[in-house]
Amino acid sequence: MRGNVIVGQSGGPTSVINSSLVGVYKTAKDRGAGKVYGMLHGIKGLLDRKYVDLSEHIKSDLDIDLLKRTPSSFLGSCRYKLPEIRDNTEIYDKIFDILEELEIEAFFYIGGNDSMDTIKKLSDYAILRSSDIKFMGVPKTIDNDLAMTDHTPGYGSAAKYIAAAMKEVIRDGLVYDYPTITIVEIMGRNAGWLTAASALAAGEDCEGVDMIFLPEVPFDIDKFMARVTDLAKKQSSIVIAVSEGVKVADGRYVFELKDHVEYVDAFGHKQLQGTAKFLADKIGSEFGIKTRAIELSTLQRCAAHMTSRVDITEAFQVGGAAVKAAFEGETGKVVVLDRISEDPYICTTSCQDVHKIANIEKKVPLEWITKDGTYVADELIHYIRPLIQAELSPMMVDGLPRHLRMRR
Amino acid sequence: MRGNVIVGQSGGPTSVINSSLVGVYKTAKDRGAGKVYGMLHGIKGLLDRKYVDLSEHIKSDLDIDLLKRTPSSFLGSCRYKLPEIRDNTEIYDKIFDILEELEIEAFFYIGGNDSMDTIKKLSDYAILRSSDIKFMGVPKTIDNDLAMTDHTPGYGSAAKYIAAAMKEVIRDGLVYDYPTITIVEIMGRNAGWLTAASALAAGEDCEGVDMIFLPEVPFDIDKFMARVTDLAKKQSSIVIAVSEGVKVADGRYVFELKDHVEYVDAFGHKQLQGTAKFLADKIGSEFGIKTRAIELSTLQRCAAHMTSRVDITEAFQVGGAAVKAAFEGETGKVVVLDRISEDPYICTTSCQDVHKIANIEKKVPLEWITKDGTYVADELIHYIRPLIQAELSPMMVDGLPRHLRMRR
Repeated sequence: MRGNVIVGQSGGPTSVINSSLVGVYKTAKDRGAGKVYGMLHGIKGLLDRKYVDLSEHIKSDLDIDLLKRTPSSFLGSCRYKLPEIRDNTEIYDKIFDILEELEIEAFFYIGGNDSMDTIKKLSDYAILRSSDIKFMGVPKTIDNDLAMTDHTPGYGSAAKYIAAAMKEVIRDGLVYDYPTITIVEIMGRNAGWLTAASALAAGEDCEGVDMIFLPEVPFDIDKFMARVTDLAKKQSSIVIAVSEGVKVADGRYVFELKDHVEYVDAFGHKQLQGTAKFLADKIGSEFGIKTRAIELSTLQRCAAHMTSRVDITEAFQVGGAAVKAAFEGETGKVVVLDRISEDPYICTTSCQDVHKIANIEKKVPLEWITKDGTYVADELIHYIRPLIQAELSPMMVDGLPRHLRMRR
Repeated sequence: MRGNVIVGQSGGPTSVINSSLVGVYKTAKDRGAGKVYGMLHGIKGLLDRKYVDLSEHIKSDLDIDLLKRTPSSFLGSCRYKLPEIRDNTEIYDKIFDILEELEIEAFFYIGGNDSMDTIKKLSDYAILRSSDIKFMGVPKTIDNDLAMTDHTPGYGSAAKYIAAAMKEVIRDGLVYDYPTITIVEIMGRNAGWLTAASALAAGEDCEGVDMIFLPEVPFDIDKFMARVTDLAKKQSSIVIAVSEGVKVADGRYVFELKDHVEYVDAFGHKQLQGTAKFLADKIGSEFGIKTRAIELSTLQRCAAHMTSRVDITEAFQVGGAAVKAAFEGETGKVVVLDRISEDPYICTTSCQDVHKIANIEKKVPLEWITKDGTYVADELIHYIRPLIQAELSPMMVDGLPRHLRMRR
């Protein structure tokens, strides 16, 4: 008989991260696992012995289908970085003591490149401790900035939401007959994958966004203002997508050019906000044109009412594949997605060494950005398009999408 | 044989305003109208002789169903206030000359209380000019602030979107194990109907928002900060809904307490923005708690991917009822919605004198707000709930909702 397994969620939530949780839970149960524990608030909660028996919270097939449609991390999340092993073995021994006490055979962590650092360190320490607990990473991030994988679960749904919201904002912007400029700020500190998804809005029924600025290319304010002037001569409504993380040539974030509120999390990341507002105010004051700044904010990472079926299915698959791999003896690996065919789109999974993935950010290749840095190349659009296909309709109860909530 | 009719859209767009346009178009055609013209950018466009023959743009039943699902004003909108008749009869004569030249039998204007001013003045002038052109108002506004009607088309869908987004934001806020405060800014200058809709988030599967502030009640910053302190002792995530139009006792908008960018439109309205950010910054700097400000911005008025079927059906009905009434000889009237039964919810239409509706704002009754001004009463929730029921699924093409775009 199999031992028990434990699963945690870490980092920023997505609208499909719970589909991966279901993938781990269901596959572990189907393959004969004993108990499936869920860490509350990731590794940080585990250190405080905060965990649940998931079968007490997922009780039916209906629960499973509701959980797939529930945004944010069902188990709660954390942004907690384990110390280097050489600096503090005590904390590692504590974790392993708890895992052994719970008779854990395999440990799954659903997260992005920061969270994969946890899998790396725990699997490294397992070697030092001669533990045979398996540690597997399950990828998730709306940012799509994980190395070694074609894309990350969570990205497709965020991209679909962004493109759909952009189509609506573009229609809204065209309503008046005087000039309006709308600047939409999209998440992405260093990688422009999410902002690039705004390019999907353009089509037979939509004018598309006029400019797209990614953090991969230094932002030139003077050229930006000149481009806006040119566009304003030609059309009454201008819609611009800008990544929250765009920086000017000297390395400062654009929003830092004015004022900024700094919040630095445990991984040393600043909280970014205000890029669109800064640019909108600048255009408004210099050109006297009516402007509007829109931040998609957390809406883009929790819009479970508008998920991609491709994404939610793949999110489930990477969870399941992680369990299968662990039960077959793999450890210190991350399940990745391999696109083996473009048309028709076919993606499979494989396992990659976590050392090649943890703490590494995958950026948008410069050849997928137009030379003038104001839009994305067709290759990038072709890359994203399959990831937003099809829907998993929300279950509507009394007029609103139904979720599964953990009762404690 | 019937003459021709003309229809225009005015004021801020909604996600169902085009369903009213379809209601006018289809009912006019079905009842034997000649041509159905559409003013481009409302009365302002008509003055420049900008109009289209709608049958050249709505060519099939598929177009009709796509148009119902297309947000923003298909014909374009304007914020244009006609002068008082005594001040400028020339402009009125110009409009009537154009209408007579186009052999218009009935004129329909889809808009809110500002736009109904246009119907009032034109129908008044028709008497002076002894014209038998009929002028009918078709209500629309997400703000739900129109007098004489139970509610306005456009409100139910915006309310549904707000409640659904709130449910997602609430789940997102609960993800970390440290305190976070999310303040969500919702549209509504003087009336809190939209912000009140955030109360619908609470239910079996959702904790709901913690406080709701409407512009009907003066906002007391000190009490607000004290309430936040109390809540922060009890729970790790706090979500607060605040109307963009909340004002302190001396009449200043909350966002004006810091800095503000003023934009005043043709009706003398200031562009409001920054209430949530101001409050979030204040909490962050005084209490050192992580805060996030979210503005639902135009997303709440153009989220056609999340409409209420009740709303979109009623939007169609008021358009159709306006045509029927005009063809039966009514003029100077607005079609309103009458709720004749609560359970089951049943709504019918009737016609009301435009003079009782134009330029009047209907606010949330004070008895529908809790005494301490931090939440809404059950009566208000019961009032809104039927308006968000059921869905009109978007037509998804290549992964995104399909719209109908006017080609010029």
